Amino acid sequence: MQMSVRVAVAGASGYAGGEVLRLLLGHPAVEIGVVTASSNAGTRLGLIHPHLTPLADRILAETSAATLAGHDVVVLALPHGHSAAIAEELGDATVVIDCGADHRLTDGQAWERFYDTTYAGSWPYGLPELPTADGPQRDALVGARRVAVPGCYPTAVTLALAPGLVAGVVEPDDITVVAASGTSGAGKGLKPHLLGSEVMGSMSPYGVGGAHRHTPEIEQNLARAAGRPVAVSFTPTLAPMPRGILATATARLAHDTDPVAVREAWEKAYGTEPFVHLLPEGQWPSTASVVGSNCVHLQLAVDQHVGRVVVVAAVDNLTKGTAGAAVQCLNLALGLGETTGLPLAGVAP
Amino acid sequence: MQMSVRVAVAGASGYAGGEVLRLLLGHPAVEIGVVTASSNAGTRLGLIHPHLTPLADRILAETSAATLAGHDVVVLALPHGHSAAIAEELGDATVVIDCGADHRLTDGQAWERFYDTTYAGSWPYGLPELPTADGPQRDALVGARRVAVPGCYPTAVTLALAPGLVAGVVEPDDITVVAASGTSGAGKGLKPHLLGSEVMGSMSPYGVGGAHRHTPEIEQNLARAAGRPVAVSFTPTLAPMPRGILATATARLAHDTDPVAVREAWEKAYGTEPFVHLLPEGQWPSTASVVGSNCVHLQLAVDQHVGRVVVVAAVDNLTKGTAGAAVQCLNLALGLGETTGLPLAGVAP
Amino acid sequence: MQMSVRVAVAGASGYAGGEVLRLLLGHPAVEIGVVTASSNAGTRLGLIHPHLTPLADRILAETSAATLAGHDVVVLALPHGHSAAIAEELGDATVVIDCGADHRLTDGQAWERFYDTTYAGSWPYGLPELPTADGPQRDALVGARRVAVPGCYPTAVTLALAPGLVAGVVEPDDITVVAASGTSGAGKGLKPHLLGSEVMGSMSPYGVGGAHRHTPEIEQNLARAAGRPVAVSFTPTLAPMPRGILATATARLAHDTDPVAVREAWEKAYGTEPFVHLLPEGQWPSTASVVGSNCVHLQLAVDQHVGRVVVVAAVDNLTKGTAGAAVQCLNLALGLGETTGLPLAGVAP
Amino acid sequence: MQMSVRVAVAGASGYAGGEVLRLLLGHPAVEIGVVTASSNAGTRLGLIHPHLTPLADRILAETSAATLAGHDVVVLALPHGHSAAIAEELGDATVVIDCGADHRLTDGQAWERFYDTTYAGSWPYGLPELPTADGPQRDALVGARRVAVPGCYPTAVTLALAPGLVAGVVEPDDITVVAASGTSGAGKGLKPHLLGSEVMGSMSPYGVGGAHRHTPEIEQNLARAAGRPVAVSFTPTLAPMPRGILATATARLAHDTDPVAVREAWEKAYGTEPFVHLLPEGQWPSTASVVGSNCVHLQLAVDQHVGRVVVVAAVDNLTKGTAGAAVQCLNLALGLGETTGLPLAGVAP
Repeated sequence: MQMSVRVAVAGASGYAGGEVLRLLLGHPAVEIGVVTASSNAGTRLGLIHPHLTPLADRILAETSAATLAGHDVVVLALPHGHSAAIAEELGDATVVIDCGADHRLTDGQAWERFYDTTYAGSWPYGLPELPTADGPQRDALVGARRVAVPGCYPTAVTLALAPGLVAGVVEPDDITVVAASGTSGAGKGLKPHLLGSEVMGSMSPYGVGGAHRHTPEIEQNLARAAGRPVAVSFTPTLAPMPRGILATATARLAHDTDPVAVREAWEKAYGTEPFVHLLPEGQWPSTASVVGSNCVHLQLAVDQHVGRVVVVAAVDNLTKGTAGAAVQCLNLALGLGETTGLPLAGVAP
Repeated sequence: MQMSVRVAVAGASGYAGGEVLRLLLGHPAVEIGVVTASSNAGTRLGLIHPHLTPLADRILAETSAATLAGHDVVVLALPHGHSAAIAEELGDATVVIDCGADHRLTDGQAWERFYDTTYAGSWPYGLPELPTADGPQRDALVGARRVAVPGCYPTAVTLALAPGLVAGVVEPDDITVVAASGTSGAGKGLKPHLLGSEVMGSMSPYGVGGAHRHTPEIEQNLARAAGRPVAVSFTPTLAPMPRGILATATARLAHDTDPVAVREAWEKAYGTEPFVHLLPEGQWPSTASVVGSNCVHLQLAVDQHVGRVVVVAAVDNLTKGTAGAAVQCLNLALGLGETTGLPLAGVAP
Repeated sequence: MQMSVRVAVAGASGYAGGEVLRLLLGHPAVEIGVVTASSNAGTRLGLIHPHLTPLADRILAETSAATLAGHDVVVLALPHGHSAAIAEELGDATVVIDCGADHRLTDGQAWERFYDTTYAGSWPYGLPELPTADGPQRDALVGARRVAVPGCYPTAVTLALAPGLVAGVVEPDDITVVAASGTSGAGKGLKPHLLGSEVMGSMSPYGVGGAHRHTPEIEQNLARAAGRPVAVSFTPTLAPMPRGILATATARLAHDTDPVAVREAWEKAYGTEPFVHLLPEGQWPSTASVVGSNCVHLQLAVDQHVGRVVVVAAVDNLTKGTAGAAVQCLNLALGLGETTGLPLAGVAP
Repeated sequence: MQMSVRVAVAGASGYAGGEVLRLLLGHPAVEIGVVTASSNAGTRLGLIHPHLTPLADRILAETSAATLAGHDVVVLALPHGHSAAIAEELGDATVVIDCGADHRLTDGQAWERFYDTTYAGSWPYGLPELPTADGPQRDALVGARRVAVPGCYPTAVTLALAPGLVAGVVEPDDITVVAASGTSGAGKGLKPHLLGSEVMGSMSPYGVGGAHRHTPEIEQNLARAAGRPVAVSFTPTLAPMPRGILATATARLAHDTDPVAVREAWEKAYGTEPFVHLLPEGQWPSTASVVGSNCVHLQLAVDQHVGRVVVVAAVDNLTKGTAGAAVQCLNLALGLGETTGLPLAGVAP
């Protein structure tokens, strides 16, 4: 391939930034440009991400619009609150793909309930497969100059439930989700409960009772699918593994749904999607099967004795849940093949 | 303590049997008698359970009523279908505590939907703390000659939800549970999906859609608490840890419930229980905190935006979930102090 | 048992301090007195160590001789550099058992090569089973008022190798040790490489090339066993597990050693020890088998094609490697039975 | 790239076979042909390796020369004892790359001490980077029609030690190695000690005292480097992780070696190697950094107080340790770029 797209990565010292770099190393049309950080600026990348052997001798630059300027694409993997200003300085000549939360929510009030910074407006939402009554979200991303990459939990939960809401086979007002995430989802911050000694051998919940920031994003996505407001009981849990999300979602069957027809809603939504796979009946997803890959594995069952559909989705929070989605959106934004450079196979066992 | 109770353990080569032995080693009133197995009969116990150092030189006898006779108590940790015949041969002179499923269900039809053996009738149910309108289940166990030890998931889920049903603050007909279990809950059978290479770093569901055998037991317990039938959407998942269950249960708030009064139902149910602990508000359970202990840690939150209560329970599936409950019931059956020999502290980190 | 010994624990918020408390909770002759911390003073213990359910409502006091005074025994689990002053203030009326490094080394120069504080002199060394030409170290601890609890690696390595050196069946000048430790051995400090995301699924070495602080302590112990100086190539590695040390030690066979007689040296050293177990031939130790217990499991093989003995030892770094040794020494110091309150069985799986 | 090489994989249901397929999916010049198995023949590949999403609908054929015929390359990932007959039937038109042990050893007597099948002769040894006095082993592999892929432990240990032996800076007769391997190295066989419940949280040794089959292969490689016989004390251990080998090797410094010159031997051997990386001084390898990549990370230290060099190597046992080496050799055999299709970045965290 002749074309070479120069891509800078801001916030390259975190887990999301590292995964963006890992994927870009395998992307045939990309040349990796500047990599930046804040407190780690000046450090050899090999000390921060020893797994990125080919980039070990790169030195992290300071994150700023000035250092990021002059690239075709800038991928931001920054704490929330920083992307709007950088994007404005970079201008429209640069495609900006934000792995952070700043531009995901369309409702400024929802933003302000969960975040401590000013609402910065929404960008095209980077979940190409999001099913809606008008078809998948994909078209909004083709040629986009700005993309808000979804959160990892919202990716898993939205893809699990949206087909049923689009098809009307489940009710939008009685949905519960419990999701288990690997620890990389919590980032690299030095918090006692993230120490290996605490995490290994343990499961624990957090952000219970609607307190997790991803709840409004999940509800926004599902409302688009349902065509009306959706409320979700969402409980995230921390699992003893570095990567992966397993989301278990249940929704009440619509009262006139033929249980044997439920599966068709998901088959219809994802039949031609390259990354979203409804497994053969009876085979259930495992997070290990999608580690390092951009694929989502799904399965569902109708539990007639309680009148609910149970859908389970497995994604890699860092790949399809963050960095893979960023690269997928980069491909769409630039008119490259959507799957270019993205692993379809996981690294297992 | 002068009294010495002679206790035999049948099925001592499995994980449940091993945990029973570990706890009995620390029980001041117990002398460990015969330990038996089936395919492992004749083997040195030290080869099967190297962690039971003081018992390493014991040889496993063949499981049969004849080898088990002559003890004050026999603890059975056998596959289902074997306990009724052994108990009958042992007779009423022997207290029989069954860690298996055979005598848990009071409804023979429910048994036959999930098991392939003839229904063997029910025994007193070994969950002393089970809250009902008439107070906890404890009295039925004092002096009992037969006890059916609860399943590990039912212990966690029942203790999580029952107080709300007894108090009427949650509805009995819209309950969902997702529970993560350590791999020891799946036993020692040689199945490919239980290999370390498959389990580590992975979460996966199983028995989805009401297919898990523990569902009728959960519903039976919750129906006792509610005083009317209860249906539960129950999804178990396998977590990358050897021990522990984290059960996340949600139930719809009864329409006239004052959200601030919800917590009182749980405080009332467990205020004086030695093993069941509602953590201080804001502190959530982790399975690591109860590993090796007979304690249950609970926490709850009211999510008013969806009108549900979320309750999370952590137990060690092998201790309070199986062997600890067996010893607790042994204590009640023999008139010993209920907590005798049972660890209240977990082994962490 | 009527006697009740009042024991205070300083540095109770760390992993070592927490394990001391766990063991003291199971000790029939101990009443737990003051528990102290420095930066965590004023905090509810249940927030720091949620696994210590019976102590959850205790509040951590400030660590100082004043708060620790008035107990029969004070167990110190502090960073190095603090115990000498506290012990002096407490005076001889109080038994002081130091889990830290301050008083382990008899050679002040060795201390100063590895530590940044002034050498504080040595105390009786708390490894009762340490084999020497004059028998085990035990007698020096009976009735002691001060005890220096060994480091976790030195416990494992010393017990692995000392019998061969006492018996003269291996050479003292060609010893190599590679040991894998669980992450709790690195403590609770917030360091990036100790995050769960970094630790899980990974093995890595540290302190290579003689740089680990435990090297002089290992050599001091082995020199006592050998009756002459010993140099050890010691490489510690960090393993993806919370607890446990597996030490693999090799030593050159003395030139006139009959290989079939090697095993006898270990049998003789540990034949009557309650906590140190040479496993039956062919059965190798695993760390899981000793988690939570005060036992050491050992096995050895003679590799005639290279002329070396290979000895593998498994201990729980927090139990026999720290807190269990502290309680064992407390028992000896106070004239209690040496095994009182100490678990002989591990918590597995 | 226009050329498309048709590659069959025999033994595709095992971990090694699965990893070969994962790498071939990312290889731009390869078309995956027949995939075979023995007991799993007839099964959908998606049930065996759910992570290989793009191949999920492939059906495993029966392993035989007949099904494997007609490909440019056949990669064998079979139990030992099967490759010679298949290779003979396939004939010289087919490049055969054997991931098994059959053709690694040049000494038939060594083979017969460790294996129960007839010695089948040796093939060119697939470790291109193996340093010898005449330069690396690479040339023997260019254009080869048969390749014996090295064992995983020998890859790690050989690359760790060979440069020092070639340069004569370490002695060949006093070498000790302790290596920790992830569980996938033990394969998919259903053995009790490989269950997740047993493996998680535990380290244990096996094949101690020269009993591991990889010992003669390690010694053969190091003897080539040293130019004279080498004996190695090798102790493998099982670590609680799915993938990765961390090998810690020590060797006595040659008596006239200038310690400051030691590092040069390794720098010289690997300075231009694409996959073998001596990390910057002071940075130590971790297995997590090479998971899923074909890279080897190395570091060394001179421990002057014992007169030994300590070298630590990290590899992914399934990638560079098996399947990556197979693809690397395939590239060399066919005249493709040696790094084609091989990941240089690991998947971390």
